[in-house]
Formats: sequence, structure tokens, C-alpha cells
Amino acid sequence: MAIRILVTGGTFDKEYDELTGRLYFKDSHIEEMLRLGRCGVPVAVETVMMRDSLEMTQRDRDTILMRCREAPEKWIVVTHGTDTMVETAAVLAAAATGKSIVLTGAMVPWAFGSSDGLFNLGSALSFVQLLPPGVYVAMNGRCFSWDNVRKDRVLGIFEKIEP
Amino acid sequence: MAIRILVTGGTFDKEYDELTGRLYFKDSHIEEMLRLGRCGVPVAVETVMMRDSLEMTQRDRDTILMRCREAPEKWIVVTHGTDTMVETAAVLAAAATGKSIVLTGAMVPWAFGSSDGLFNLGSALSFVQLLPPGVYVAMNGRCFSWDNVRKDRVLGIFEKIEP
Amino acid sequence: MAIRILVTGGTFDKEYDELTGRLYFKDSHIEEMLRLGRCGVPVAVETVMMRDSLEMTQRDRDTILMRCREAPEKWIVVTHGTDTMVETAAVLAAAATGKSIVLTGAMVPWAFGSSDGLFNLGSALSFVQLLPPGVYVAMNGRCFSWDNVRKDRVLGIFEKIEP
Amino acid sequence: MAIRILVTGGTFDKEYDELTGRLYFKDSHIEEMLRLGRCGVPVAVETVMMRDSLEMTQRDRDTILMRCREAPEKWIVVTHGTDTMVETAAVLAAAATGKSIVLTGAMVPWAFGSSDGLFNLGSALSFVQLLPPGVYVAMNGRCFSWDNVRKDRVLGIFEKIEP
Repeated sequence: MAIRILVTGGTFDKEYDELTGRLYFKDSHIEEMLRLGRCGVPVAVETVMMRDSLEMTQRDRDTILMRCREAPEKWIVVTHGTDTMVETAAVLAAAATGKSIVLTGAMVPWAFGSSDGLFNLGSALSFVQLLPPGVYVAMNGRCFSWDNVRKDRVLGIFEKIEP
Repeated sequence: MAIRILVTGGTFDKEYDELTGRLYFKDSHIEEMLRLGRCGVPVAVETVMMRDSLEMTQRDRDTILMRCREAPEKWIVVTHGTDTMVETAAVLAAAATGKSIVLTGAMVPWAFGSSDGLFNLGSALSFVQLLPPGVYVAMNGRCFSWDNVRKDRVLGIFEKIEP
Repeated sequence: MAIRILVTGGTFDKEYDELTGRLYFKDSHIEEMLRLGRCGVPVAVETVMMRDSLEMTQRDRDTILMRCREAPEKWIVVTHGTDTMVETAAVLAAAATGKSIVLTGAMVPWAFGSSDGLFNLGSALSFVQLLPPGVYVAMNGRCFSWDNVRKDRVLGIFEKIEP
Repeated sequence: MAIRILVTGGTFDKEYDELTGRLYFKDSHIEEMLRLGRCGVPVAVETVMMRDSLEMTQRDRDTILMRCREAPEKWIVVTHGTDTMVETAAVLAAAATGKSIVLTGAMVPWAFGSSDGLFNLGSALSFVQLLPPGVYVAMNGRCFSWDNVRKDRVLGIFEKIEP
């Protein structure tokens, strides 16, 4: 079985613009990361948008949902900015696509030396192959159900919502 | 639940000796890789040996098995050289420990720029959390049962044994 | 003879803040870079300030000048943001310290994978050992006299002022 | 003025063969390193051979000398394995080419994360522009005359021959 990777931007794919000194989006690094990881799973990579997740709108989330629906694959990994990853997960979950959808991202851009991106990508691609249909967030080597996770913005990690 | 990582050496942990120009083992890089991956799963790292897997003996494999048995955790990841990973997996499987044991490794040393190690580590730590008890090999983003995998030494990838 | 390295900030030493997604200054990376370069020249590293060069004031430049004067060494390398490197060079040149002072910097932060910082540091430390007293800018493998160089902000390179 | 870079192999350009676990030569990384260093000096790169310097013969050294002579440039940088760099320097010096020739190398392959190669390349390209005709070794941020340098094989650094 194949995995569809939907690229939506986020820290994952940010680069450094050496002329302005600012971070920006150019192309996705996912293909390069898959090569580095010697990924042997059949994967179709599709760039849906290149968005900072703080700037993502409801319309953007609807687009991501549409692409999840239209994808022929049952296994979907969505790369996404961490700040609103949980909001997008909720939108995807509400639609009940019947697919296994895993959102992942990175705290440090892949283009930087110390990124967690490759670890998270390996993790998300693995979780998605074993999870039952549903929407999940894979970060920090853990997998959370969409309705039981929040980002701790002070520590920069994802954690379960304690009741 | 926590994961026990048993370090046994392999390409994963090889370093370059700048005085002799040869590759050798010093300390494991697993702790550093877990930090880079911002791993949030409780993990206990234990260096069992630092061995090139082509030089691994039956006695070494017995030692690894013993450590799998003695570990209090149900989830175990073994980092291992790729050349004889499948042989060690067979030894662990024969012993029926009742635990989920995932072997992983790398084609390129972590200390090098283009290693697949971080991807594989993220992958193995994820698979182990969802798999039923048994022994598995996690490489190239895929997970294989111990008795249905071989390393293609020409292509450098792991694949299913076709019947 | 020894070289004094005066650290003033600039792109060289910027880091990525994973909580805010912004670039910021923490500690200088110069010591780490010298280790990586296996630098065998006696070097004294002194952090004067950590400033984005666009925010550098006349008072900051006076401070840098004072440190150049007070340093016991005849050879001085100043790491500096590229945007106003030439302005600081002019202030140092006007003071006629009788020392060889080489300013250098980077277009991409050292903490990123693709930085030119190590190349420029090796270059600046080499030029300073051979140049007569004066103030120079070492960038792109070239060495320019302070009064005959400008940064091309569109191309991101330093070049001679053509008459 | 332009610089000719003569590539002869050495640790600089070694790569990791993930199928055999051995180090080997493929193509030179010099062009990539010049891009990373945003080198603005006109440079002509010429691969003369890809040799481990311990295996270099007198015939190889004669070839390198011939290429130094034939090069139209007055400034020449030779990348070379560190173990016999000094021997090659002696051959080039005996021939009195009237050019400034700087040999440099690396203790750690460029393809690895922690290489000194970029630092040394920046250093050699800078020294060559200022030195009078002669043959030199540029390592560890220092520049040595060909007849006053030796490699300390225990420490892995180059140093002056003390009288």
C-alpha cells in the first residue's frame, strides 16, 4: 500500500533568505528527506500549499480536507506547521474520511543543522501504516488522537490533554 | 509506557578516526539523536556492545537476547548493523520473549552528513508502540516480520522475501 | 603571533528560536568553529556585543574601536553583520590603530547547514596574518581595503567600488 | 587574478560507500564547497587524480608538477592527502615554477558533518593571493614554508620543524 504525503508548509519547509535575513518558503524538502531516509514505502508527494500555520484560514483547511478525500490512498501524512496543527486535525476528523491521517511537523526547519524533521517524518510514515482509520498527530516520537492533544507553547512539545 | 533501546553498534554509531582514516566505534549517538528528535516517549538507553555486525558471534546474540529478557519494558528497539540484523532477529524470535522487539540500523553513520539514522530511529520507535509482541526489522520506513525479510546487498535496502 | 577575534554578532551567530520561529542571538559559535577548523594559530576570542548590524549605533562602533585599541595583539579579526560591515570598517580605519584589522561575516547563520561562515573564518584568519597594518573586509574568499568595497544587496556579495 | 585549484584526492574528497562500509573516491566536492563559501574569486578547478596520499607515487607527483607548470594562473591551490603533503610540496619546490603554490587538505572528509575542509579551503585560497612565489602548506589556519613543516601524526596537526 502507498502513502500520500500532503505538504502544507510549516516550519518543516522554511528556508533562510540570505538577502533579507528572513525565513521564507521555497520548495518542499520532503523528496530530499525521503531520499536521505532511503524510504522504501511507495509514496506520492503533493504540495497543497506552503503556509505558515498561524496564517492558515478555514478555506485552507477545507482545501487540505478536499485533498485528503480525493487522494486514492488510504494512508495520508500531512506536513503542517505546529501552531495550528491541532485545529486542522479537528477539521479533518469532523469530516470522517475513513482514512488514516497523520499530521506531523517540525520545531526546527529541515534546512537547519539540528532539525527534528527527519525523525518526525520517519515516525509519521510508520504510525500511519499501523493505525486504524482516524486523525492523529505524530510529534516527539508519540502519536496522539486529534481530540486528545495540545501543543505546549512554552516547552515546544505536544502532550496529552489531561482530564 | 516506556521503550528500552539496546545499542549494539553497527553503522549507526561508527565514527571517523582522523588519525588513521578508518571508521571505528566510540560512544553511541543515540542520546544525541533522541534530543535532536525532541523525543517525548520515556526511553531507557543501554549500550550492550559496540560491534560491527559482520563480527557478531552467537555469544553476542545470546547477550542481546538476555538483555531483551531482563529489560522491564515490553517495547524494545535494538540498534544493529544491517549485515546480520536478520540473523539476530531470528535468535530473538526463537526465544519467544512475549515483547515487541524492533531492530533498526543505518546505511550511513550518523556522524556523517547524509545519514538515514534519524529517520530509521523515528520509524522504529513508532512501530514498536503499535506492533503486537514479536520480532521485527524496521528499515526504509517499512516494517518486516523477522522471518520475511532480507537485505539486498546490491541495492542496500531491505525487502520482503518473495515466495 | 596571536590573533584577537572580536565577536560583534551578525548573521554569523544567529540561531533559530524554535518556540517563536524567530532568529535571535544566544552565544557565539566562534569557539566551536575554531575547533572544527582545527585552528592551530593562537587565538583569543572576545565577545564584544551580539548585535544585528542594522541596529548597530555609533556608540557600538566606538566600543569595537576601543577593543581593537586595547587588544594586545597586532592581528585582529572582527566578526560582524554584513549590512553595515563597511561602515564599521570606516570608523576603525579613521582611528589609525596601526594594526591589521580584518572584518568578516556570513550570509547564512553558522547554525544552519549551508553556512559560508567556516569558509569566511578560515579566510579572514589567513589574510590577517599577511596583510600590512590597515582595515580590510574579507568576504567571498576575497580581501578588500575598507575604502574600496561595497555590499551588493541584490546579489549578496561584496565587490570593489568601480571608479 | 584567478586561482587554479588542482584536485588530487586525499581525505578532503573521500566518501562513505554504504554498500561496503568503506571510504572511497567519487567526484570532488570542491565545486560544492566553493558555492557554499560563496567564493567570489575567479577559480578554475581541475581534477588531476583522486588518490589516497599514502598511495601517491613519484610519477603522480610529477604529474601534479606538470599541471602546476601548465596552468596559466600564477596562484595555485593543490588539495592533497595530509600524510604525504610535505613530500609533494618538496617535489614542487625543487622545480622552481615561479608561482605561488599552496597545498591544503582535511583531517575529516568533507562529506562528514564535522570536516575542517571548508575552513582549510577558505584559508588556502586566501594565503595564495598574498604570498610571494614559492611552495607552502596551509593547514590549521597556518601557513608553512614547504621546507619547514611536518605533520604530527599523533596529534593530527601540522607544525613547524623546530631546529
